[in-house]
Amino acid sequence: MISKKEILEAADKLAFHIHKTPILESQYFNDLIGAKLYFKAENFQKTGSFKARGATNSILNLNEQQLKNGVATHSSGNHGQALAWAANKLSIPCWVIMPSNAPEIKKKAVKGYGAIVIECIPTLEAREDGLKEIQRETGAVFIPPFNFHNTIVGQATAAVEIYKELENLDCILAPVGGGGLLSGTALASKYLSPSTEVFGCEPLNANDAWQSFNEKRLIPVKNPNTIADGLKTSLGDLTFTYILEGVKDIFTCTEDEIKEAMRMVWERMKIIIEPSSAVPLACILKNKNYFKGKKIALIISGGNVDFDGFFNQQGS
Amino acid sequence: MISKKEILEAADKLAFHIHKTPILESQYFNDLIGAKLYFKAENFQKTGSFKARGATNSILNLNEQQLKNGVATHSSGNHGQALAWAANKLSIPCWVIMPSNAPEIKKKAVKGYGAIVIECIPTLEAREDGLKEIQRETGAVFIPPFNFHNTIVGQATAAVEIYKELENLDCILAPVGGGGLLSGTALASKYLSPSTEVFGCEPLNANDAWQSFNEKRLIPVKNPNTIADGLKTSLGDLTFTYILEGVKDIFTCTEDEIKEAMRMVWERMKIIIEPSSAVPLACILKNKNYFKGKKIALIISGGNVDFDGFFNQQGS
Repeated sequence: MISKKEILEAADKLAFHIHKTPILESQYFNDLIGAKLYFKAENFQKTGSFKARGATNSILNLNEQQLKNGVATHSSGNHGQALAWAANKLSIPCWVIMPSNAPEIKKKAVKGYGAIVIECIPTLEAREDGLKEIQRETGAVFIPPFNFHNTIVGQATAAVEIYKELENLDCILAPVGGGGLLSGTALASKYLSPSTEVFGCEPLNANDAWQSFNEKRLIPVKNPNTIADGLKTSLGDLTFTYILEGVKDIFTCTEDEIKEAMRMVWERMKIIIEPSSAVPLACILKNKNYFKGKKIALIISGGNVDFDGFFNQQGS
Repeated sequence: MISKKEILEAADKLAFHIHKTPILESQYFNDLIGAKLYFKAENFQKTGSFKARGATNSILNLNEQQLKNGVATHSSGNHGQALAWAANKLSIPCWVIMPSNAPEIKKKAVKGYGAIVIECIPTLEAREDGLKEIQRETGAVFIPPFNFHNTIVGQATAAVEIYKELENLDCILAPVGGGGLLSGTALASKYLSPSTEVFGCEPLNANDAWQSFNEKRLIPVKNPNTIADGLKTSLGDLTFTYILEGVKDIFTCTEDEIKEAMRMVWERMKIIIEPSSAVPLACILKNKNYFKGKKIALIISGGNVDFDGFFNQQGS
């Protein structure tokens, strides 16, 4: 079980490496929902997502030999970028196995941080094989994206920062994919603000957390199709345990609701958030009656959006 | 001539009504340019642009009878929204003449602030006729978008906030369309930081300020075609005078350079800026040698972008 001490110590250590991201407010959304909303803007985090927290914390907990060998992971998304960045910042080698169909901008970002990108065919099996091969060759330590003690501790520090700034929160909402952020949020809430209700928010099209939570057993989704690409992953055994223990409920929302919420944030708050980050707001808009009159924190998980389509169209 | 006292008093008064917007930094752009860049984020201003400053200041300077009659303007863009918002905030009536081809989102925003929108055919003549008719009918006071004493005083307060936070700036850059923001920036710099060089930044495709500045006579552009829709307007006699006196030079950049700079800000800083706001950064990127090693403030003028294309494409 992750302890309060571990989480608070991680928050202190991470403060030297990552941003203390701002908490934003919006008169428009407050009026629309009849509540007080606080957006923890992890889209402004290093590498554009909260994943920098877990990746950095995982590296900070390696021993000398492990640091020398370096780290590796497989990722099509934000975790790969975060690990590459953290490894670069802490001057250790890093390998990232990426599916060949990952967006160019993500491959470029990982390479830009100095990591070695190894492309594989886009199946989970190929990714895991690629990872094992790299580990055999280099001795690199695998840093898992979510189902891992030190990753969860790192992700918990976003909520620690929220509770340091805001008191008497009625609710806190985080998106849920693999469940690292939601687990960390549940743990931080349990230790620092036990009266705050913790909710996970998930696309209906990738609702494994909702199913697992309600059935009380792990039910992974197969090939989910959602615009919230950061939330396609299913829970792990570790994150599932923390979520079952510390989360009050899981909300879901449709693809249209996600797009609408994302667009509202772009237009009204003038910040770029990725589709996954719009899921909590979409769930609040869908369940206004429940949230009315409450003081609510939402974690904006990231802001990594592929604008190729938009700019190509503008250019034509 | 606008006085130092007027500008400082306006800054004090406006503080009750508008946001003191944040000044953002970006490690990425600092490294790329080899300079220290400070982005004054007026995209986070009320109504999504600096225009809220000039509109509010203009209304605050009306007499009792004028306040009773209300205000009117013609605008296809940010000034209309800003005036509608300020009139609503200060509880006076407002009419905005808008060309029928103005983006729906802008019409909706103006109406959302409680102003009456009067549509006209999209020519300057029709807009001016529509305005005169409304003034005849209602006695409303025309609040011009830029070539107007109190508007310029209001726009100057963005630079006042910059100089209150930052010392020893080598340069300050603002986009230039009608020249209200640039005039205000030049005046604030003259009074508060005379050693700071003031630059205007303009799309090559709407380079009337560049031409006028270099020829030392007003040369309006006809039907400019640029993605930076806020900068299509030509200078007025008043703004031209202040710009000639207080601006060191005007830079220009191409459409592709504007799009590239805008995309870089969206992707790297995770904030929505409109094309007009990308023009100063595009000019810095184009003239890196000049700006290297300097401490530079750029005014991000606004963040009102029409995302219809992007979201329709995502939806298909």
